[in-house]
Amino acid sequence: MSTPSLLILAGDGIGPEVMAEVTRIIDWYGKKRDMPFDVSEDLVGGCAYDKHGTPLHDDTMAKAQEVDAVLLGAVGGPKYDDLDFSVKPERGLLRLRKEMDLFANLRPAQCFDALADFSSLKRDIVAGLDIMIVRELTSGIYFGEPRGIFTEGNERVGVNTQRYTESEIDRVARAAFELARRRGNKVCSMEKANVMESGVLWREVVTKVHAESYPDVQLSHMYADAGAMQLCRNPKQFDVIVTDNLFGDLLSDAAAMLTGSLGMLPSASLGAPMANGRPKALYEPVHGSAPDIAGQGKANPIACILSFAMALRYSFDQGAEADRLERAVEKVLADGARTPDLMGPEGGTPLTTAQMGDAILAAL
Amino acid sequence: MSTPSLLILAGDGIGPEVMAEVTRIIDWYGKKRDMPFDVSEDLVGGCAYDKHGTPLHDDTMAKAQEVDAVLLGAVGGPKYDDLDFSVKPERGLLRLRKEMDLFANLRPAQCFDALADFSSLKRDIVAGLDIMIVRELTSGIYFGEPRGIFTEGNERVGVNTQRYTESEIDRVARAAFELARRRGNKVCSMEKANVMESGVLWREVVTKVHAESYPDVQLSHMYADAGAMQLCRNPKQFDVIVTDNLFGDLLSDAAAMLTGSLGMLPSASLGAPMANGRPKALYEPVHGSAPDIAGQGKANPIACILSFAMALRYSFDQGAEADRLERAVEKVLADGARTPDLMGPEGGTPLTTAQMGDAILAAL
Ligand SMILES: CC(C)[C@H](C(=O)O)[C@@H](O)C(=O)O
Ligand SMILES: CC(C)[C@H](C(=O)O)[C@@H](O)C(=O)O
Repeated sequence: MSTPSLLILAGDGIGPEVMAEVTRIIDWYGKKRDMPFDVSEDLVGGCAYDKHGTPLHDDTMAKAQEVDAVLLGAVGGPKYDDLDFSVKPERGLLRLRKEMDLFANLRPAQCFDALADFSSLKRDIVAGLDIMIVRELTSGIYFGEPRGIFTEGNERVGVNTQRYTESEIDRVARAAFELARRRGNKVCSMEKANVMESGVLWREVVTKVHAESYPDVQLSHMYADAGAMQLCRNPKQFDVIVTDNLFGDLLSDAAAMLTGSLGMLPSASLGAPMANGRPKALYEPVHGSAPDIAGQGKANPIACILSFAMALRYSFDQGAEADRLERAVEKVLADGARTPDLMGPEGGTPLTTAQMGDAILAAL
Repeated sequence: MSTPSLLILAGDGIGPEVMAEVTRIIDWYGKKRDMPFDVSEDLVGGCAYDKHGTPLHDDTMAKAQEVDAVLLGAVGGPKYDDLDFSVKPERGLLRLRKEMDLFANLRPAQCFDALADFSSLKRDIVAGLDIMIVRELTSGIYFGEPRGIFTEGNERVGVNTQRYTESEIDRVARAAFELARRRGNKVCSMEKANVMESGVLWREVVTKVHAESYPDVQLSHMYADAGAMQLCRNPKQFDVIVTDNLFGDLLSDAAAMLTGSLGMLPSASLGAPMANGRPKALYEPVHGSAPDIAGQGKANPIACILSFAMALRYSFDQGAEADRLERAVEKVLADGARTPDLMGPEGGTPLTTAQMGDAILAAL
């Protein structure tokens, strides 16, 4: 196979800082493990708007379609808050997800043992937590038409449309069942079938996919409000959760926060296989652009580094190398390496973003 | 004023059991505080379907429109899971909310001191918590058209529509600002204005209502996913949260669970003032019908009793009597009265539903 290609879109805020550490790790893999990557870089979000007047230039979109995987940092910032909806930084990210058809967003919510005390939850409720939220990412209310702000009579009305076709539900359900087989073999599907017809169809299709193709996996259904509750009460009851785009947005953020490891959590967004067999893929940390600490060397690069580990696993079939990188992260945490977001009340001197990168490289 | 009228719709599952205790409290107010209520009873949910083939009979709907306040227990149960969407138990509740136009759903998330250790969160994060979630209840994706399951080409598609008019947002925002003035004077509004145009309009209208009529109240905005995170991380940062129907469903359930007092939490759903000046109103516990424990005397009646306390406060302008009832509940808890859901690992003998009712009556 030819050298795998990566497009790096560092984006806004702390994006460039955390991505700089990932770049060093990528270099390390090229030099020390004989795994070179063909890396190119481009703009997304506010910085793309600043340069091109659009949060994602067509050329960048075209490049993203060609590479083996995209690594994204973060988008957005207060500077762009008053921009028109159509050119907000987020639209760049949403366009990537939609046009690459990245329908399965994998969001592991894992509690790192060294950090369990950072959770607002009691230690025994989160220690050892390891769930995988599979969020549908290319449909639902994020993209449904009609949408917009319209005038009706003498007032305006804001409209968005939740739409799910059977095949959209089918493919994300399969992704969830496949993952469950390689983990705890349990899937919990969440919707509001008691209130929304789109939820009724969701439940029906998930049930059908299960019966036809994955009867060996344990399937349960939960209303999304009860799901939000259960995530807070007893998150360890879950293995894989599959849910729609909007519920997935809220539930995965809540789950991420529960772990106490928000600055640590990666994500993968996967689409259909390309000609070379690799899935279309974009990897990004779950955290945002954190404009308040941008440019100060305070950002935690681990979520972005673990996103690259997910790329090794899901795009490049290098599970052992992904494990190696994840173990290096666990080791530095166990040894006490901490960026400012991970400092407990005991205090001490935190590492800078680059020093955390150094530590992980050393552990590798 | 003539004797105030109450319609009791006990509903399904544990609804009738917990409502029986409320009825005893209502009787107590009639006899001991010279506050008689004119009480009638009727069916809603699965039991109404069993009798009439519909989860809410037109006669019941008409009665609900006439009384001063409706008290509802809970609806739903596994027996009704396979019913057609249009006659599911929940449709009875949703019809009441919609036709009575109960646009402001008040969901206090309070942590009772005696129960703080029941939370899955650390004590210091939840002890003393007292937030009020104001959820829009008559619009949004719960009611927007078009909705349904349609066939397009050779597959089906599930559709729901999020719709908010300026006046719908305006009135629920006012309700939230009014409440904030009587509490901590802070409102946080939550939407996904970065992704949904309905959220853009929501933010705009809330901002305008604030500037024009409530500049003295402190207003902030948060994306709903960040809101879910912040509720888990540091819920005490909030005073009043105002949000739409669907976000409110998830966020208020998550907040309720955080308190560790789910079996304890009431809600009020308020509409416009009637001719007598009282708002249209429905009061119900936040918990569901809990079919697994129904009929066994295990249910905790406190949420339903505190819902009646909210009725005293918001429908009958009897704030002092509401305080009295709330204090009685706090006292029995402080004295160690516990239904099975409130039993800690120490064990002991729990009270039955009726014994908890006895204890609260004695404390009154
Ligand atoms: C930035 C925003 C558009 C995005 C979303 O809502 O999907 C983010 O919250 C996420 O979860 O990746
Ligand atoms: C029972 C159901 C229709 C209802 C809702 O979704 O609104 C419930 O979850 C609630 O929050 O009151």
